[in-house]
Amino acid sequence: MEVENKHIIIKHAIDGLPTESDFELRSTPLVLSVAQGSKEVRIDAYGVGKVVVSGNEEFERDDVVAGLLAWEEYTVIRPGTTLTKVDPNEFPLSYHASILGPSGLTAYAGFHDICKPKKGEKVFVSTASGSVGSLVGQYAKLSGCYVVGCAGSKAKVDLLKEKLGFDDAFNYKEEPDLKSALRRYFPEGIDIYFDNVGSAMLDAAVANMNLFGRVAVCGAISEYADAGKRAAIDMVDVIYKRITLRGFLAFDHLHLHAGFISSTSDHLRHGRMRAVEDISTGLESVPSAFAGLFRGDNVGKKLVRLPSL
Amino acid sequence: MEVENKHIIIKHAIDGLPTESDFELRSTPLVLSVAQGSKEVRIDAYGVGKVVVSGNEEFERDDVVAGLLAWEEYTVIRPGTTLTKVDPNEFPLSYHASILGPSGLTAYAGFHDICKPKKGEKVFVSTASGSVGSLVGQYAKLSGCYVVGCAGSKAKVDLLKEKLGFDDAFNYKEEPDLKSALRRYFPEGIDIYFDNVGSAMLDAAVANMNLFGRVAVCGAISEYADAGKRAAIDMVDVIYKRITLRGFLAFDHLHLHAGFISSTSDHLRHGRMRAVEDISTGLESVPSAFAGLFRGDNVGKKLVRLPSL
Repeated sequence: MEVENKHIIIKHAIDGLPTESDFELRSTPLVLSVAQGSKEVRIDAYGVGKVVVSGNEEFERDDVVAGLLAWEEYTVIRPGTTLTKVDPNEFPLSYHASILGPSGLTAYAGFHDICKPKKGEKVFVSTASGSVGSLVGQYAKLSGCYVVGCAGSKAKVDLLKEKLGFDDAFNYKEEPDLKSALRRYFPEGIDIYFDNVGSAMLDAAVANMNLFGRVAVCGAISEYADAGKRAAIDMVDVIYKRITLRGFLAFDHLHLHAGFISSTSDHLRHGRMRAVEDISTGLESVPSAFAGLFRGDNVGKKLVRLPSL
Repeated sequence: MEVENKHIIIKHAIDGLPTESDFELRSTPLVLSVAQGSKEVRIDAYGVGKVVVSGNEEFERDDVVAGLLAWEEYTVIRPGTTLTKVDPNEFPLSYHASILGPSGLTAYAGFHDICKPKKGEKVFVSTASGSVGSLVGQYAKLSGCYVVGCAGSKAKVDLLKEKLGFDDAFNYKEEPDLKSALRRYFPEGIDIYFDNVGSAMLDAAVANMNLFGRVAVCGAISEYADAGKRAAIDMVDVIYKRITLRGFLAFDHLHLHAGFISSTSDHLRHGRMRAVEDISTGLESVPSAFAGLFRGDNVGKKLVRLPSL
C-alpha cells in the first residue's frame, strides 16, 4: 500500500526567533511495507503513534508506541531506535508524550538527580507553566519544598497557584528588577533554581541563592534565538556561596526511568499530580505550535494531535 | 612586657584595583601577657608564627604554629580559632603558609574533590603560576592528566614548562582570541578547567569543553576589582555538553586535610612537587605585596616574612 506522507520541513537555517514562514508542509509518497527480515517499524504520529506495519517481532500492527518520531504522518523507525509500547487504556495517549514522556523525565531527573532537594528547601522554577517547569514545581511540592514559579501572564500565574500547588508565583514581565523581585519572593534565599531561561533570570537567581545552592541548567529559551544574549553570573558569588550550576539532558538519566514512570503514574492515579497540556490539531499546525514556544504561547506541554490517531 | 605592635590597616573601602596608598602601617602598644585562665595565645607573625606567650595548655612559648593570623607583628589568638603546631625542621617554615597551607589545600581539594580527574583527561589551569594554579598543575600531572596552563609573562610560562612539568603553557596577554588559543592548545577539548580568573577566560574555556566537562570555580581575579566585568558563559553549551561549574572554598573540604598533608609532604620529600614562593621581607611590604597580586607581580605564593622570625 502506498500513502501520501505529509511532513513538515524547515526551509532554511533559522536566524533569530522562528516564525511560521520558516516551515513548509510537504507530501511524499511512502510505501507501507517492509523488506523481509527488516527490523523496521512504520508508525503514524509524533511522540505517540500506532504501528501500521512492522518487520520487528517486538511490535505488531495497532500497537500503541511512544518514541522519538518526526513531524510527519508516517515515520519509518530504524533498528536501534528506542520505541516503547504503551498501555492505551490507563491514561490519555498524550500523557506518554508529556508527563510520562521526555518532559516528565527531564523534570524528574533534573529535580531529583541534579538538584538533590531536601525537605523544606526553597525552590525557584522559571517558565514554571511550561512542559518541564509545571512538573518540576509539582515534584518539588511532593518533596516537601517551598516553591515559587515565574511565568509570562496572569493566566499562567493563576494556574501555578490555583491548580498546580505552587506556594507562590509571579509574572516576570511585570518585574522591572528581577533581583529585587526574587528577594521579595525568597526573603530566606533560594536553595535550588531550576533554570529554563538563562540570561538575566539566571543572574538574578544566583544573586539570591543561599550557601551551597544548586542550579539545574535545563534550558535557556531566552538565549536560543539570540546568541548575543547571555547570562552575566557573578562568579564571586558562585565561589563564596559555593554554588553548583549543572547542565543536563534527560537521556543521561535513564537509570531513573523505571522509578520515574512508576512513581509518576502513581501520583497521577491518586490525583497528586496533573498533566498540563496544550494541544493543537493537524500536522499543518506544527509550525505555529513550534514558533509559539518562543513567544510563550503554550501553557504546559505543547502537543500536536493528528486526527488519524 | 609591653611591645609596639606594628600592623597594617586598610584606610578606606577600596573601589577598583587596590594600590599601596590604600594601606597604612600603624603601631599600637600591646601587653604581652594573658589573663589567668585565659585561652588566648599571642604570636608574632602571619600565616606561620612563633608563640611568645600562651594561656592555652596546648601551646607553649616558642612553639611554631600555622593558622589564620593578621597583618601585624603580634596577633592575639582567641579561643576557638584553629591553630596548628608545625614541625619547624622538616620543611622551610614558609611551606606551611603555601604548599602545605590553605593554597595547597585549595589546589588539592579543588582538583581532587571538585574536578574528580580521571587519568588521561585534559586539564586547563588559569593563573597557572600563582599560589594555587602552580600546585593544581602539579597535582594534575601526578594524576596522569595532560595539563596546559596560562600565565601573564614569558618568565612565568617558562617556569610552568621547565620547572613545574606542565605539558604546555601560554601567555594569555599575547592571545587576542582566547577561544581559538584554547582550541590550538586543546585540539581534543578540555575536560577540566580550574578557574582562577573568571570573565572572558571562563567563557573561552566553556566553549572548548568536552561533554561532561567540569569547572572548579576557585577564583575570579579579573572580576574582583571590577563588578561590571563578568563571564558571559554560553548556557546552551552548558546544557548540551552537560557541564558542571562549581564554586568552592577549601575549608569545606577539611575532611581531606590529613590526606592532603601526608601525600603532599611525601611528594615534596621525593622531589615530585615543588613549592613556588615569592617572598618579600618586612611588614611594610604587605601593601605592595597585596596590590601586586592584582597586577600579576607575584610568581607562586606571595608571602611576607617578618625579620623577627
